[in-house]
Amino acid sequence: MDKKVLVTGGSGLVGTYLKDIMPSAIYVSSKDFNLLREDEVKKMFKEIQPNIVIHLAALVGGVHHNIEEPVRYFEENIIMNTFVLKESFNNKVERFTGILSSCIYPDSVTTYPIKEDKLLEGAPHENLFSYSYAKRCLAIQIDMYNKKYNTKYNYLIPCNLYGEFDKFDPIKGHFVGALIEKIIHAKKNKNNSITLFGDGTPYRQFMHAKDVAKLINKMILTDKFYNINIATEENYTVDRIAKIALRVCDAENFQINYDKNKPNGQMRKDIEISKLKKYFPDFQPIKLEDGIKQIFNKRIASI
Amino acid sequence: MDKKVLVTGGSGLVGTYLKDIMPSAIYVSSKDFNLLREDEVKKMFKEIQPNIVIHLAALVGGVHHNIEEPVRYFEENIIMNTFVLKESFNNKVERFTGILSSCIYPDSVTTYPIKEDKLLEGAPHENLFSYSYAKRCLAIQIDMYNKKYNTKYNYLIPCNLYGEFDKFDPIKGHFVGALIEKIIHAKKNKNNSITLFGDGTPYRQFMHAKDVAKLINKMILTDKFYNINIATEENYTVDRIAKIALRVCDAENFQINYDKNKPNGQMRKDIEISKLKKYFPDFQPIKLEDGIKQIFNKRIASI
Repeated sequence: MDKKVLVTGGSGLVGTYLKDIMPSAIYVSSKDFNLLREDEVKKMFKEIQPNIVIHLAALVGGVHHNIEEPVRYFEENIIMNTFVLKESFNNKVERFTGILSSCIYPDSVTTYPIKEDKLLEGAPHENLFSYSYAKRCLAIQIDMYNKKYNTKYNYLIPCNLYGEFDKFDPIKGHFVGALIEKIIHAKKNKNNSITLFGDGTPYRQFMHAKDVAKLINKMILTDKFYNINIATEENYTVDRIAKIALRVCDAENFQINYDKNKPNGQMRKDIEISKLKKYFPDFQPIKLEDGIKQIFNKRIASI
Repeated sequence: MDKKVLVTGGSGLVGTYLKDIMPSAIYVSSKDFNLLREDEVKKMFKEIQPNIVIHLAALVGGVHHNIEEPVRYFEENIIMNTFVLKESFNNKVERFTGILSSCIYPDSVTTYPIKEDKLLEGAPHENLFSYSYAKRCLAIQIDMYNKKYNTKYNYLIPCNLYGEFDKFDPIKGHFVGALIEKIIHAKKNKNNSITLFGDGTPYRQFMHAKDVAKLINKMILTDKFYNINIATEENYTVDRIAKIALRVCDAENFQINYDKNKPNGQMRKDIEISKLKKYFPDFQPIKLEDGIKQIFNKRIASI
């Protein structure tokens, strides 16, 4: 490919997989440029002169940190997104892709799974409110550029992600990473049970971060820059996901305790993927059980 | 008053009235500081060192210009708001007030008049979408500061405004200003009719910009920094407003033609003001007919 691709947030969950799949792209992280400073963003574009920008950089964190830092999650994301998008346009970038998150959708909609056109119908869930609203604004900003300048900028809205490069913290981590970590801890301590928050009934939809990287690569190779949800069809209850994880981690006999004093969070938030299937019909996502097994094996081998 | 008050957007519709009412405040406009540049915003705070900030500055314009420039209306407003709010906090400003607009509310809600708690229930009307969404974000940002830092920052959400310092352009101006101008033009040309867009049936709620200035002054004097709608109870159809204007402008016999090929816009968007009445019970807004008459007389005298 003769186009120069710039990937921001290059050392994150998706960026790390993307490096393997698209080694010719240029990956920048906060060590290279501070995207909260307009002068540094301008400098980045002047130095790199990309044709395509994949904007993965964001202030991201777990629910706890989001609730602690509502100002930072809004301001830093909105500033970073605005500067990177604006300088992409000023530097004649041909394709810009923002990677959003299904948490930008309204907390509740009338019909599930959630379609792309439901984006503005209500407020996002309170747990990640600031982050979600700033990310939703990036969708709006991209729409405005396309409307005003006929650019072909777009955004992908993935469901919850997991992967090897996630934060493996039993408290602060994302659900799948934390779940694997809890199983490993239990095994180490010869404990035959794990404890999860809530009662296990909410539905969750997880995609392997490597699949997001694969889709970004496909999108660039086929020049299919659309605004679409990306997810798998595996929308399972927390309890079912935990049982899958126990099975593939050789812990089938473990007991799952539910701490019902902790909130369930949203009961469902699965997103609809007919557009994904239409535009990328040959895309085969990694099955949840295979993804969990592979990560578990790597974690076990590394400790 | 011993507090130093900084007013941004000091030369605008509300700012100009505020200068008369609060002459001791410091008024800045884009000629003094470019609020789109973080370094200039920092410089402004360093030089002025305010205790209270009334943030009126915004990229504001009519429907036509909003539709033409969706990127600018979003980006410039979000950048300006973020920098001014952030530096207010960094400089230990005790009170910050954002002046928003009722266009930030959802295009349609289930019950009218619109209460303050409906803000996030849906997307704003498409005509002023970018402007509205950026302004709505300022409400969110202020909420986040209060949540995180226990600040007493607030926002006022006024209905449509009119005043002497409005744009008096029969095409690009806001409705009341344009209406007065059409009557003056018709008189000059010995023409006994005026033409309005749509069919005259949509309801509109107008407040004199001087009343907003008075309320800002009251708010500061009484230290009542609440998030409230501000409007009058005069919610009238376009046809009724036009007839009021014709009567007080000595043009009662003029005919009103409706250009039904032009859109009506939203059928109603009146906002609920029980909080305004609770916190400022002695506030008496200027009656629409008195406001129009006064502006008409000044315009006639000046041409």
